[in-house]
Amino acid sequence: MITRRRPRPHDVLFAVRGAILPRIWWRVAVVAAAALAEMGFDRWVTPLQHPTAAAFGAFGVALSLFLGFRNNAAYNRWWEARTLIGLLLAEIRAFAREVEVMAGGDRRLIALAEGHMHLLRLFLRQIPPDAAALAALGPDADLAEAPHPPCAVLDRMAQRIAAIPDPIARRALSERLGHMAHHQTGCEKIALTPLPFAYSLLIYRTTWIYCLLVPLSLIEPAGWMTPVFAATIAYVFMGLAEVTEELVEPFARTDNALPLDAICRTAEISLAPHLGRPAPPPPQAEDHYLS
Amino acid sequence: MITRRRPRPHDVLFAVRGAILPRIWWRVAVVAAAALAEMGFDRWVTPLQHPTAAAFGAFGVALSLFLGFRNNAAYNRWWEARTLIGLLLAEIRAFAREVEVMAGGDRRLIALAEGHMHLLRLFLRQIPPDAAALAALGPDADLAEAPHPPCAVLDRMAQRIAAIPDPIARRALSERLGHMAHHQTGCEKIALTPLPFAYSLLIYRTTWIYCLLVPLSLIEPAGWMTPVFAATIAYVFMGLAEVTEELVEPFARTDNALPLDAICRTAEISLAPHLGRPAPPPPQAEDHYLS
Amino acid sequence: MITRRRPRPHDVLFAVRGAILPRIWWRVAVVAAAALAEMGFDRWVTPLQHPTAAAFGAFGVALSLFLGFRNNAAYNRWWEARTLIGLLLAEIRAFAREVEVMAGGDRRLIALAEGHMHLLRLFLRQIPPDAAALAALGPDADLAEAPHPPCAVLDRMAQRIAAIPDPIARRALSERLGHMAHHQTGCEKIALTPLPFAYSLLIYRTTWIYCLLVPLSLIEPAGWMTPVFAATIAYVFMGLAEVTEELVEPFARTDNALPLDAICRTAEISLAPHLGRPAPPPPQAEDHYLS
Amino acid sequence: MITRRRPRPHDVLFAVRGAILPRIWWRVAVVAAAALAEMGFDRWVTPLQHPTAAAFGAFGVALSLFLGFRNNAAYNRWWEARTLIGLLLAEIRAFAREVEVMAGGDRRLIALAEGHMHLLRLFLRQIPPDAAALAALGPDADLAEAPHPPCAVLDRMAQRIAAIPDPIARRALSERLGHMAHHQTGCEKIALTPLPFAYSLLIYRTTWIYCLLVPLSLIEPAGWMTPVFAATIAYVFMGLAEVTEELVEPFARTDNALPLDAICRTAEISLAPHLGRPAPPPPQAEDHYLS
Amino acid sequence: MITRRRPRPHDVLFAVRGAILPRIWWRVAVVAAAALAEMGFDRWVTPLQHPTAAAFGAFGVALSLFLGFRNNAAYNRWWEARTLIGLLLAEIRAFAREVEVMAGGDRRLIALAEGHMHLLRLFLRQIPPDAAALAALGPDADLAEAPHPPCAVLDRMAQRIAAIPDPIARRALSERLGHMAHHQTGCEKIALTPLPFAYSLLIYRTTWIYCLLVPLSLIEPAGWMTPVFAATIAYVFMGLAEVTEELVEPFARTDNALPLDAICRTAEISLAPHLGRPAPPPPQAEDHYLS
Repeated sequence: MITRRRPRPHDVLFAVRGAILPRIWWRVAVVAAAALAEMGFDRWVTPLQHPTAAAFGAFGVALSLFLGFRNNAAYNRWWEARTLIGLLLAEIRAFAREVEVMAGGDRRLIALAEGHMHLLRLFLRQIPPDAAALAALGPDADLAEAPHPPCAVLDRMAQRIAAIPDPIARRALSERLGHMAHHQTGCEKIALTPLPFAYSLLIYRTTWIYCLLVPLSLIEPAGWMTPVFAATIAYVFMGLAEVTEELVEPFARTDNALPLDAICRTAEISLAPHLGRPAPPPPQAEDHYLS
Repeated sequence: MITRRRPRPHDVLFAVRGAILPRIWWRVAVVAAAALAEMGFDRWVTPLQHPTAAAFGAFGVALSLFLGFRNNAAYNRWWEARTLIGLLLAEIRAFAREVEVMAGGDRRLIALAEGHMHLLRLFLRQIPPDAAALAALGPDADLAEAPHPPCAVLDRMAQRIAAIPDPIARRALSERLGHMAHHQTGCEKIALTPLPFAYSLLIYRTTWIYCLLVPLSLIEPAGWMTPVFAATIAYVFMGLAEVTEELVEPFARTDNALPLDAICRTAEISLAPHLGRPAPPPPQAEDHYLS
Repeated sequence: MITRRRPRPHDVLFAVRGAILPRIWWRVAVVAAAALAEMGFDRWVTPLQHPTAAAFGAFGVALSLFLGFRNNAAYNRWWEARTLIGLLLAEIRAFAREVEVMAGGDRRLIALAEGHMHLLRLFLRQIPPDAAALAALGPDADLAEAPHPPCAVLDRMAQRIAAIPDPIARRALSERLGHMAHHQTGCEKIALTPLPFAYSLLIYRTTWIYCLLVPLSLIEPAGWMTPVFAATIAYVFMGLAEVTEELVEPFARTDNALPLDAICRTAEISLAPHLGRPAPPPPQAEDHYLS
Repeated sequence: MITRRRPRPHDVLFAVRGAILPRIWWRVAVVAAAALAEMGFDRWVTPLQHPTAAAFGAFGVALSLFLGFRNNAAYNRWWEARTLIGLLLAEIRAFAREVEVMAGGDRRLIALAEGHMHLLRLFLRQIPPDAAALAALGPDADLAEAPHPPCAVLDRMAQRIAAIPDPIARRALSERLGHMAHHQTGCEKIALTPLPFAYSLLIYRTTWIYCLLVPLSLIEPAGWMTPVFAATIAYVFMGLAEVTEELVEPFARTDNALPLDAICRTAEISLAPHLGRPAPPPPQAEDHYLS
Repeated sequence: MITRRRPRPHDVLFAVRGAILPRIWWRVAVVAAAALAEMGFDRWVTPLQHPTAAAFGAFGVALSLFLGFRNNAAYNRWWEARTLIGLLLAEIRAFAREVEVMAGGDRRLIALAEGHMHLLRLFLRQIPPDAAALAALGPDADLAEAPHPPCAVLDRMAQRIAAIPDPIARRALSERLGHMAHHQTGCEKIALTPLPFAYSLLIYRTTWIYCLLVPLSLIEPAGWMTPVFAATIAYVFMGLAEVTEELVEPFARTDNALPLDAICRTAEISLAPHLGRPAPPPPQAEDHYLS
């Protein structure tokens, strides 16, 4: 995640980190080149049709709406993912307190809750166990090898809870476990269910058709500025499509995905007093980027 | 469900699996043919009116908005269905753990929860019991013949829970059963309530009228490219309507519906440790398709 | 509710059941006649102003947005109503199971839950008690005469629950009753709160003004096709307004309202095993219509 | 709240009650006068620029979108307010039943719940105690003078609940109290947090600029109909802004606000059997208006 | 927060407090100057291309949609933040009552709940402890120095709750603590997760490109009014972007952010009776501004 908020005037002109242009410049260039080619063909080979801009109006509006819809869906996935991870963090904090209130503060149980967050991070990002995860798991590091590690750690927590004699405490902690399972499964849902592929294909194809045809409607009103206009239009539409691609996968390790490492660190800071450890330092962005 | 995410440049040009064009090509062809016929009539028989593109502007915007609205409603149904199935999966996982914590791990009860997921899958897809469902049900295979199988399996679970002596355990498990009933009924809601038919009819009729009239406004500005433009417009609007048709029925067995088989398999992997079985292999996409 | 899903090509041309045209044809005819009159006046009496279509552009977009907004609000009411009724059905199923788990299966209590669904149906549709409702209520048929029948039946259920000796069972069932009260009150909310009248009036007036003025902008570009275009525009905008009118009242007995009779039947099928009765046959659509 | 639903043809022409025109006619007149003045200046003093309607296109679309957005936000506030009041009503009904089930039907406690609804109504509308509220409070009328009356009545209910010996009953009723506090605080949120003022100002200013500049673009295409068109555009945009203003304050006593008096009456009807009173008559609309 | 609601005619002309213009006037001026420069260059140096307004149509619609989308996302963040703070307030009120009902009214515990609200305010605004916060914390002022103060105060509350002998009371209060943790973590989510930076950059860059290019399309239709039109367009688009910037950070201390000081004061008024203190005066807006 890029931690910067509002672009300053200087950024509007020059910012590269977090910007979309470096990843789409070749597409913008292709459209500009196509515009140039259409202009040349029109002037030197044989005159092409020049449909008016109004003829492209409804097409442009339709494309804007579809890109806007996809954009909206992507943003909602991203925010739902952020909300679910936040709910999981809240649940872990509440779980730790409830272990103290209801079950005398079983530290192993609290450490497993921290381990769950790390294993879920590994699972969602499809990466092998790293140092932070193994340190959190401690003696339960074998869980990282289970067929479904985030489920396995909740199973082990359930086993410890089953051994608590007080039925009211058992039930209270078991309910918290149920909430954790809900938020975990919600994250899995987002990680494993892509946006319908047919959408993406339809929108990409439509965007390309629009960007390659639109110079025809610009030759007359825009003259030699046609490639500039075509490139601008390509920048706007392709740029939006590209931002969308990153938000659609909120658990990836891209510039606009969620900072799962930092959120795990926040969980460690919150749980430190319950585990009798000093709180680790808060997560630090490097070059405005939190991993 | 198509498991592919981002279309590569190659896909934008050639992808067929998951694409919408194979299913709508004849409609696009009809529109192109109509455009050709209108052009011919206009040139050789008698000149037709050539309303300007601007006259079609508001019509095109209105159509975009209605298609966009329907699209949105369809996407929300699809995502709500995915969320409900995800909640049911989370509930089953939590249920299995709670059976261990509160009721000493009654394996028959856990197996029935797995059976519920399979019977719901059969019910939503309106297919007869298959091998996976019967294997999950085991000795309770008679449930597949009940008037309402997903309700019947929850009823049988309630009977087993009623026999647990501890009232706190009974209540906890009975609450989980209530949540499962909620998510199941939510899925039934989506499966049994189509989008209002009047909408669909209105939108289909409007789309056809628009696509058949729009060539008139293109003859002047677009000349011989009129059929190309008309076909493009038909591709965009008919394509969107067609994607929508698949998302509206998220429990069907189409390319863009939900992978219920894979989700049932995920449930089996999660429940395997509770049932003392080895975890089955994770679901595999065939040619990027999960059933 | 019309149970048909996707209109076939044949339906797009000919479908009448569930279509909007039969109810708005006179409005479309009025607009076409007005267009004809404006054309005649323009040609034979005195030339009128011919504002360009572009001058109508913003007006048309604004109207589309407002109709789209109203449409959205209506659809959301309809889906919220469907969701609430579904939640109530889920709650009744869970209630029946919980009565078995916690209170030894008091059949009268379960029958009252079924009666609640029927009395709510009568209340929402403002119709007198019918055979199905009286059969479900059985010895408690006097409840249908109470000042607020759905509340009265929940009150009677509360009295039976108050007599259960086990406090945990009492609390569990009382919570379910609370959920039923929530869903019932949500349905009342939708039935008793219309969309703000000022909206409807503003949108109807605007639609009429637009449809009656727009032929002026079509005379020049569309010539003798003006009445056809005007009628098409009227069909789209009036049609959308009309669909909206039905969805706004999801508990009415119109083509696009909710099938409350069928949902009550589904509840009877689910509760039959708990009441020791054979399950009644599932609801059948007549001519694609479920009441 | 205006209880009328669908405007009849007669209403579209003549309805005044609930209509927006009486409140905005002077603004529409100002715009028509400005259009006339611009026309006169253009013809007799010195010709003005006549920007084409297309130049106003993007401006008009932008304005439609912003008005549409504000409209949406206002409607959502109104519906959220309606939902919260409905949830409170459901909660009170459930509370009364739970008092009977769990605490032997303490009538004073139930009467206080009714009083809470009335005091919240007074608080949200910022009006002094009226007869209905004092009748509901009975011997606890002093609560109406507390610094925060709706909180004070819940505090008093908590004191009565604290005296119930059974801890399960205490907890059950205390949870209901918590829900009531949630819905009450939600209503306070809406009553005390206006839409951001900067929005309103930006939108009003933009609307006026648009309406005063747009006649320039109409002089050429619309000729002497310019004031008619300008007035129509002003009617649509100003009318929508005005409806929005009423929905933004759903607890006020305007035509389109919520009928809090009627909802309190509904609560009284529901609680009457628990308080041993005859049910009062249902609320009656006067001239289609429920206060 | 600006407490004013509806702008009066006088405000539309002159309001400065809460208005957006003072913060964007230099941007509007830059665009007007650029328009003037383009006009001069076109007239006296060399004629530039004059693309028609229609050519800008799709661009303008796209920009409106993206600004509208961002606007929507920002508003939803702001309202979600308001809702979460409202839920926290409701939870604290319910907590105080539950402490009286279930745990004999431990005043220290209630005071800590008030302290939690203040510490969360400091945390969200990233400001050092102030007098109001220290007064609320009283003997627990050391909590303000913890690594994560809002978590630390909940931890201390958990310690006090753990000492309550009755397990039902312990569980009830511990659940309330869990809810408080949820709402707190939700607020942290909003404070720490900015809108994706790539969006902001894309939108700012697009807005500038549009505003700087659009005068070219206005020279012909608008003549010497070009700078006026360009400035108006800049005012609308830049103004909307600027309002958005404030709503995106609902916990900041800007004109359109949330009045956290006032909400803390409301909490103090509600809790005063439980703490045996007189209620402090309600929060007062200064020059229509609540901090």
